Amino acid sequence: MGQSGGPTSVINASVAGIITEALNHECIEEIYGTLNGVLGILQEDLIDLASESQQQIRALRHTPGAALGTCRYKLKKQQDFERVLEVFKAHNIRYFFYIGGNDSQDTADKISKLAQEQNYELRVIGVPKTIDNDLPLTDHTPGYASAVKFIATSVRELACDNEAMGHGDLVSIVEVMGRSAGWLAAGAALAKRRDHPHDPPHIILLPEIPFNQEKVLEDIRRVLKRERFCQIVVAEGLVDSDGNYVAADAQTDAFGHAQLGGAGDALADILGQSLPGVKIRVAKPGLLQRCAAHAASKTDVDEAYLAGEAAVEAAIAGHTDKMVTLMRGDGEHYTTETGLAPLSEVANSVKKLPREWINEDGHSMNFQFLRYAQPLIQGEVTIPHHDGMPVFARLEKVRIDKVLPAYET
Amino acid sequence: MGQSGGPTSVINASVAGIITEALNHECIEEIYGTLNGVLGILQEDLIDLASESQQQIRALRHTPGAALGTCRYKLKKQQDFERVLEVFKAHNIRYFFYIGGNDSQDTADKISKLAQEQNYELRVIGVPKTIDNDLPLTDHTPGYASAVKFIATSVRELACDNEAMGHGDLVSIVEVMGRSAGWLAAGAALAKRRDHPHDPPHIILLPEIPFNQEKVLEDIRRVLKRERFCQIVVAEGLVDSDGNYVAADAQTDAFGHAQLGGAGDALADILGQSLPGVKIRVAKPGLLQRCAAHAASKTDVDEAYLAGEAAVEAAIAGHTDKMVTLMRGDGEHYTTETGLAPLSEVANSVKKLPREWINEDGHSMNFQFLRYAQPLIQGEVTIPHHDGMPVFARLEKVRIDKVLPAYET
Repeated sequence: MGQSGGPTSVINASVAGIITEALNHECIEEIYGTLNGVLGILQEDLIDLASESQQQIRALRHTPGAALGTCRYKLKKQQDFERVLEVFKAHNIRYFFYIGGNDSQDTADKISKLAQEQNYELRVIGVPKTIDNDLPLTDHTPGYASAVKFIATSVRELACDNEAMGHGDLVSIVEVMGRSAGWLAAGAALAKRRDHPHDPPHIILLPEIPFNQEKVLEDIRRVLKRERFCQIVVAEGLVDSDGNYVAADAQTDAFGHAQLGGAGDALADILGQSLPGVKIRVAKPGLLQRCAAHAASKTDVDEAYLAGEAAVEAAIAGHTDKMVTLMRGDGEHYTTETGLAPLSEVANSVKKLPREWINEDGHSMNFQFLRYAQPLIQGEVTIPHHDGMPVFARLEKVRIDKVLPAYET
Repeated sequence: MGQSGGPTSVINASVAGIITEALNHECIEEIYGTLNGVLGILQEDLIDLASESQQQIRALRHTPGAALGTCRYKLKKQQDFERVLEVFKAHNIRYFFYIGGNDSQDTADKISKLAQEQNYELRVIGVPKTIDNDLPLTDHTPGYASAVKFIATSVRELACDNEAMGHGDLVSIVEVMGRSAGWLAAGAALAKRRDHPHDPPHIILLPEIPFNQEKVLEDIRRVLKRERFCQIVVAEGLVDSDGNYVAADAQTDAFGHAQLGGAGDALADILGQSLPGVKIRVAKPGLLQRCAAHAASKTDVDEAYLAGEAAVEAAIAGHTDKMVTLMRGDGEHYTTETGLAPLSEVANSVKKLPREWINEDGHSMNFQFLRYAQPLIQGEVTIPHHDGMPVFARLEKVRIDKVLPAYET
């Protein structure tokens, strides 16, 4: 198994689920992890996960980051794919579980296809992971809810602070992650109490709604008049009406995605010029959003673990080229079951935030979104502490002997 | 009682302590709160705290922000001070408890002095509060430990994330608050495990140590070579060798303090130019540091409550013009008792981070700091949740009838 892409608070829970379920099946003789995703496969950096202590595997359930290491390396050349299979063959790897987002599921799909071409019997199952919640064919993705729970908790706490200071006019901006979809920013709406539409956050600026400076200023002025402070959540991927990022300094990552940052500061600049005498504060939790295990959703942790278990069950049952999905029950009370979706349909496709879940005002979420998101953040996680600090898993990472010549990546 | 200056995660615990202790004394007939500190006194905006439900007062112990509202208004004119006494006389206010930092203790001192001049019997006791930990004559200040616990917890979590991504070179910067003293930035050192000096954070940039670009770059390169990632904590008040803020855009607040922000981004710019090919990520939790009640220190909450109780006990015992202090016991195990210090000695003085607690390298803390700070972050707080979100106190704020003409501030 491997982990890929940006870590989440719960990606290690999926590792724990895979290991635990794998131990139930005698046909699985060894349990290997690859260090840093496909990079570890190319370099034959494999570790023996079955030899880790049960204590550490249990601790993975509340440990943020990616315990196996992760990567954003994209297999490019045919030679890379050949090498992956060569390593799999050398170690008799017949099941491959890849925990990741769109790009990772695409990688898994291509590996599987090559194995089939070469008649190498291999079952490949993807496990969904991303705080961005943008994978199609699954109700939601593990990692999303914990990021949202941290964001909404922080926004509700910040509201207490802002309100106390808000005897003078104050605009408080929180910049959250979200490149192309506003799933995370929308989640901040959970900070409002039920039936209290005037609760903070007062304005959510989503990538789906082009930034209209005049309208936003008008809305801020109205909120300031009513509340004496205005709390704004802005997605890093906010764009103007021409589709340009509001953030000043867009760069590009290895997959060609824009690396953003600065929408909050850019907004603060704009507001500073237009709202003289108003104090403006910006918080940018950055990567803290995806690793705040201390504010994780128990539902999310449990589902990440479940997705790992389900991946092994599916592979054992003979499935391949599938990603585990989470399917919501139809009943009044929230339930989840796992399903399977073809990797090829998941890879490189994106699930958008439905426009009809955004209110007419363009900067608040309606009951459909809340009905969707609220069940996902239920339950808190108790993390063992030592000396006042959380204690996280540390794997031994016992290396598997390399049997192949080194490979240049 | 009133609250002043920036809120903390535990300033409301002091309010709960004052109210609870005040109810024990029959000589106290009414318990009033002023809305937004001295501003509320000037405007005669007083509320009846004795009529609040016990449930809400209990909930104050875990509620961030400042439940009474706060202010940064500085009493300037003699007329302002006269007005304060006029309001106190009109409502027969004989005990005044002011929860705040240096500036607030100065205000309390001046109010008390004027009352003595006018032979108005009034006892004034300050309750310490500031995440900055810069009040003199007290071992530490309520609010500091919870901010540190949030910062150190976040840094430890972020380390898991950074380490997983660090197969390529990565510099991860967390900008923390701290204008003139590095108490908060130093606290990030608690993220290291005992006897693991190489644990993140690898470099702490304190306002006490002028930023030496060449040396810092050299240190970063060494860490990157060893760890493949480098985690840096930088105080917002970082200065260069000329004493200028490294942050680009320094502004000034109502008290004449520089309003900072941007040291993290400024550092990222510098590193981006000097370390080609290295990814740089900046997180700036901003005000989240002082309101993250979900990561508060139980020791801190208990001490904030204790300081409130002690303030009432001191006033009843006849003390005035004093601030409650926290005094650490000499024994091997951490204990605290409260003491009293003259307001005049607290006001406008600053406790610096001892230079001898900083290691020779200038960017890590030694055992003396750890021995000081570690006991303060012990214990976690359980916050009641509803619908997956923390539930905070909401006071009724029943207004006391105004009896004086309005006052222009």
